[in-house]
Amino acid sequence: MLNTTIADQEIVLDHGTGARLSRELVELTAELLGDVYVGEMEDSAIVRTAGEQLAITTDSFVVDPPLFGNGDIGKVAVCGTVNDLAVLGAEPRYLTLGVILETGLPLSRYATVLRSVGEAAREAGVVIVAGDTKVVRPGEADQIYLNTAGIGVFRRPPLRMAHVRAGDSILLTGPIGNHTVHLLSVREGLGFERDVLSDCAPLNGLIADVSRSPFGQAVHSIRDVTRGGLTAVMHEYARATGLTPHLVEEALPIERAVRMACDMLGINPMNAANEGCLCLFVQQAAADGVLEVLRGHPYGRQAVIVGTMVEGEGGEVRVTRPDGRVDLLDELQGAELPRLC
Amino acid sequence: MLNTTIADQEIVLDHGTGARLSRELVELTAELLGDVYVGEMEDSAIVRTAGEQLAITTDSFVVDPPLFGNGDIGKVAVCGTVNDLAVLGAEPRYLTLGVILETGLPLSRYATVLRSVGEAAREAGVVIVAGDTKVVRPGEADQIYLNTAGIGVFRRPPLRMAHVRAGDSILLTGPIGNHTVHLLSVREGLGFERDVLSDCAPLNGLIADVSRSPFGQAVHSIRDVTRGGLTAVMHEYARATGLTPHLVEEALPIERAVRMACDMLGINPMNAANEGCLCLFVQQAAADGVLEVLRGHPYGRQAVIVGTMVEGEGGEVRVTRPDGRVDLLDELQGAELPRLC
Repeated sequence: MLNTTIADQEIVLDHGTGARLSRELVELTAELLGDVYVGEMEDSAIVRTAGEQLAITTDSFVVDPPLFGNGDIGKVAVCGTVNDLAVLGAEPRYLTLGVILETGLPLSRYATVLRSVGEAAREAGVVIVAGDTKVVRPGEADQIYLNTAGIGVFRRPPLRMAHVRAGDSILLTGPIGNHTVHLLSVREGLGFERDVLSDCAPLNGLIADVSRSPFGQAVHSIRDVTRGGLTAVMHEYARATGLTPHLVEEALPIERAVRMACDMLGINPMNAANEGCLCLFVQQAAADGVLEVLRGHPYGRQAVIVGTMVEGEGGEVRVTRPDGRVDLLDELQGAELPRLC
Repeated sequence: MLNTTIADQEIVLDHGTGARLSRELVELTAELLGDVYVGEMEDSAIVRTAGEQLAITTDSFVVDPPLFGNGDIGKVAVCGTVNDLAVLGAEPRYLTLGVILETGLPLSRYATVLRSVGEAAREAGVVIVAGDTKVVRPGEADQIYLNTAGIGVFRRPPLRMAHVRAGDSILLTGPIGNHTVHLLSVREGLGFERDVLSDCAPLNGLIADVSRSPFGQAVHSIRDVTRGGLTAVMHEYARATGLTPHLVEEALPIERAVRMACDMLGINPMNAANEGCLCLFVQQAAADGVLEVLRGHPYGRQAVIVGTMVEGEGGEVRVTRPDGRVDLLDELQGAELPRLC
């Protein structure tokens, strides 16, 4: 029934004008999202909280291409926002979903994306409470853009960058560069996309495992390594803490195929966007314990220690090269790799 | 200082890549928004609620043109989301702001929009707690798109469509059609835009006045009359309540210039989008009292009663024409007027 409705149809301007076709698209959307859609047909959703602190975040997604090898913009949009809530120590609960569609988008492609939103939300344990759809003319968007805003509740004090201390170990939960290489390969037809998959994943379960473990208190701050890559995260923490992140280049988890692709493309994997990789700042004595917990979770199997926070000149980031030389890692002006997230 | 930074600059792709230029744009944005921006530089904002029910909503905005005579997409984005929270009886508190920018957008235009966001937020008494910016290539967006998600708190039970009863009066807080005529006139250079201004306004203050008045309990449901116009709102309530909205065409508040423009453009003002007009469903005995309260507020001066909810065939909407004939008002398939909100 649903599939008959979808086949061979395209988005038209009237899907966005607030009249019957708009309403039918909303109804179709609710059906595609399934049980994770709990919106009412009022102008706002109503939820109840119990005297809690809330985390609130938003992210717009303009992923090119919107459908890639092992995922799509729908999955990225849910995971990105879920992860932004979870890294502060909040339990992600509610998402809103704003959709901008280009006229002519095949409805089947829209359906694929919305089903992914539903699946990712189900895996992350969040519900979609409100949505909105706009339609623009051809050439006023690239197929589909999404916005997800997210609300999470805190069951324990928020993690903050200010909690990071000199001596803290810097951990990564998995390899870097995969998402960027996968998307560029699909985009440009480079042939890497079968060997290198996007790491896109909701990481709230992984974070919950760590925080419930005996080492939970030793985790001072977490960040997901997305736009701007590890370089951007390191500079963010250098600015916020006044400490100096000191990385060991050889310790960075980079898959062979990713390294080859990056060499070919002239990309530094440290600057590449990821969608399923966390950077944790952990009290040194507990770092091995946290590593073990991380490795016990499917999304943390390849977790490693990549560096240490040290006292130093404010704003600097250092990296020990394979030959033992210590370099300053510059903040990038731009990455020239748009639309990966 | 700020103005020197902005003059003659354009948005470039690197404003969206997560590196230094991205960060500088975020810093500029915070400066433009002023005191209403309370976001921290963590991945989510943290707010505290006190055991309350929350209203949550989202809206994407693709207004064409983004800057119009008496407002811009920034004002529309704040007011639209504030109003969606307020019509349920919630007090709007927190907004998130997602921005999609087209490469080449003059930074001065961005600054105008962001200043408007700040002003409208200030007027509405909300704060911006989280933001995100993406940049796309030329031809992948039309200058600037915004998404605002909003969170409100309930100090009293939510208003719901299901509370509407047969016999309720249908009120409008002001004239319809102005926003649509103004934007189409600016867009097409028709010359109406000096006489007909957009009605865009945050209406939470107006709603608060009514709900604090002795007639507050008599207001059963409120909707802002946006995309799809009054026709869409009437059909929404017909479906949700099983009752029949019955409008009196002659009672509809439509300014002379708007009527002329609509005739010329072949638009029915009942189908036109507004950004500052409420439709209230009010117990009949209290309708005059509510009218008086509405008229005491700057945004409700021209409030009128336009119809009644009656028992009838489910799903129908009726309208009494000036000649006394009663017609069924069809739900529109589409409005063919995209990008007004």
